[in-house]
Amino acid sequence: MTGRVLTDTTVGIVGGGPAGLMLSHLLSLSGIDSVVVDNRPRSEIEHTVRAGILEADSVRLLLDTGVSDRVRRDGDEHDGIALRFGGASHRIDFQYLTGASVWLYPQTDVFIDLADARARDGGDVRFGISGTEVVDVTGSRPGIRFTDADGVEQEIRCSYLVGADGSRSVCRHEVPEQQRTHYFREYPFAWFGILVEAPKSAPELVYTHSSRGFALISQRTESLQRMYFQCDPDTDPADWSDARIWDELQARVAGADGFALQEGPITSRAVLPFRSFVAEPMRHGSMLLAGDAAHTVPPTGAKGLNLALADVRVLAECLERAVLKKDPDALDDYGRRALARVWKSQHFSYWMTTMLHTLPDASDFDVRRQVGELESVVASTAGSTYLAEGYTGWPAR
Amino acid sequence: MTGRVLTDTTVGIVGGGPAGLMLSHLLSLSGIDSVVVDNRPRSEIEHTVRAGILEADSVRLLLDTGVSDRVRRDGDEHDGIALRFGGASHRIDFQYLTGASVWLYPQTDVFIDLADARARDGGDVRFGISGTEVVDVTGSRPGIRFTDADGVEQEIRCSYLVGADGSRSVCRHEVPEQQRTHYFREYPFAWFGILVEAPKSAPELVYTHSSRGFALISQRTESLQRMYFQCDPDTDPADWSDARIWDELQARVAGADGFALQEGPITSRAVLPFRSFVAEPMRHGSMLLAGDAAHTVPPTGAKGLNLALADVRVLAECLERAVLKKDPDALDDYGRRALARVWKSQHFSYWMTTMLHTLPDASDFDVRRQVGELESVVASTAGSTYLAEGYTGWPAR
Repeated sequence: MTGRVLTDTTVGIVGGGPAGLMLSHLLSLSGIDSVVVDNRPRSEIEHTVRAGILEADSVRLLLDTGVSDRVRRDGDEHDGIALRFGGASHRIDFQYLTGASVWLYPQTDVFIDLADARARDGGDVRFGISGTEVVDVTGSRPGIRFTDADGVEQEIRCSYLVGADGSRSVCRHEVPEQQRTHYFREYPFAWFGILVEAPKSAPELVYTHSSRGFALISQRTESLQRMYFQCDPDTDPADWSDARIWDELQARVAGADGFALQEGPITSRAVLPFRSFVAEPMRHGSMLLAGDAAHTVPPTGAKGLNLALADVRVLAECLERAVLKKDPDALDDYGRRALARVWKSQHFSYWMTTMLHTLPDASDFDVRRQVGELESVVASTAGSTYLAEGYTGWPAR
Repeated sequence: MTGRVLTDTTVGIVGGGPAGLMLSHLLSLSGIDSVVVDNRPRSEIEHTVRAGILEADSVRLLLDTGVSDRVRRDGDEHDGIALRFGGASHRIDFQYLTGASVWLYPQTDVFIDLADARARDGGDVRFGISGTEVVDVTGSRPGIRFTDADGVEQEIRCSYLVGADGSRSVCRHEVPEQQRTHYFREYPFAWFGILVEAPKSAPELVYTHSSRGFALISQRTESLQRMYFQCDPDTDPADWSDARIWDELQARVAGADGFALQEGPITSRAVLPFRSFVAEPMRHGSMLLAGDAAHTVPPTGAKGLNLALADVRVLAECLERAVLKKDPDALDDYGRRALARVWKSQHFSYWMTTMLHTLPDASDFDVRRQVGELESVVASTAGSTYLAEGYTGWPAR
């Protein structure tokens, strides 16, 4: 223990992405101190291209808790999406169906807002650390050991330790194998994602079903667009010429309705993995898991970031009860409440995925049945509303 | 041709099940003559245990066209179903959600009502024939050749030939391979169905999800019940003792909510195959396919008979236009209108199937995700309504 700089706090948070920072922010509003650590430098997180759709409740959380109102200024409110199949687009009007919207606002901007807010409010956030290790997670004072960005050995001791350390979580592995269940599903496809310098092809996201596979036409700014298409998981992005990418995207969105996909220089390209994962329980002793550390959803339906924010909203409430009201049962509520939403989100993401993607071994029957499903959803106010409820996010519980 | 007794009619119908008989009945109401042939004796069809749920529109069709009002007297109106999972039942209230009901009324009774109505109205229906052959289906006077129940060689010549001859249709094979597409999906399970002498366990159908697989608790009369459970397709019913059947059913419906499955003597048992099939086009020259001859749905959701009746409702309209108004385009409308419903029904049946059944290779993730879906459906008025719309049947188009 000698030689380590020791810090005592109430909640130690491993992971300085949106989940960890939002939790720290919410706790500080209740007067609960916390320390956040992340092995990535802040600049690295700021430059990782990630999801871009916020549920109405996620936006409210940013605004109502005083993180930033930048989402209102720089974000883009989307009142619906298009489901495109059979060469025509069918709008799902979220406002009409549910009274809610979603917002196009990249995860990196959510991160910047949260990191700025924590810095503004004097939050203790340590980026760029290394050698992170968590200890005594079932004890009364669990700890986080690491080497900080200046090479100094550090140790944080806390009453509660939160693993918000993403899909490669180290915290998750502290739960002994015989006490945990890892639910897992792989998909036989991935997303080929590109950033394109071009004007918008559509005002809202276009989720496209075609016999060649899924495509998503999405936006970033007036002059920068984000597009995806289903590909083999072993795809090497370098193997695809720009011309081949455009041919494939154009073929998938083709139709007789005048939809025109705007092309432009491709400034970034990557293949995104596709999997579903849930780790249960979300609590182990004094340690709690949140966000991607506890679950991963496939990107279809944009639930990942929203689910992480929903986790920490519930977790902050539970920690407040545990810390301020000394209610020992409060932490048991966390997993129960969070997991109900996790499994609904897992289903929603799976549904959007399987409705729109083509399995490599899909028969003609499967493709026609998908069109039958899409026809059913768009023809039914109830079906469209059910989809809109999932997309805009269920009420907090 | 010598030696054959020749009959001329306007519409020749191969298949004397509900689809063929209902079509003949509807045509007769418009003054269009038809002949129906079926290679099964009437008594055999009457004693085949089949589906038992009629959509509201199917009931209306029987009542409004004067087939019989027996469904109103002997049928049982069901205003909903139960979705049972996690050991508790969740009612989907069709009346509240859609204003519609379904009726428990066995297919054999629909058949008896239709056969009686055709006999009463002087319809020409030939049961128990053999050696059926269809000829000249693309010509102006297609024909049906067969040996009647008395051993007399017969030939029917008609303007339009309808193949309503079930899932093993001979008519379907008249469409040349290069002009047809057969869409097909098999499922790695079947239903083990039993008839039980016992009182009702529940007033409405109970669709049950469990980690052991699907079960359906259904009814026939006050003292006779129909139950099903998902099994391996290679199951030999004789291998299952009554005790084993009850153990399996009890385990699948078990819960803490006091649901009590009523046991009794098992009077009939069978393994029902499970597949999805669509043959396109539904028209070839002067021949039209209807009901199981053109498509098969898995039994989950009880769409098969209802879809067959919906087919012939549309087909009767199109034939009336073709015959009475001499509108040559009328028959092209048939496939387009019928197939829209077919694919929605295929999806609905697939959805109910995959939401409730356990695949042999299902992971724990898959089973938990199904529960996430069931939770989503019952928690959402929109989700429940979307299911209720499909179950009670979409409006006729």
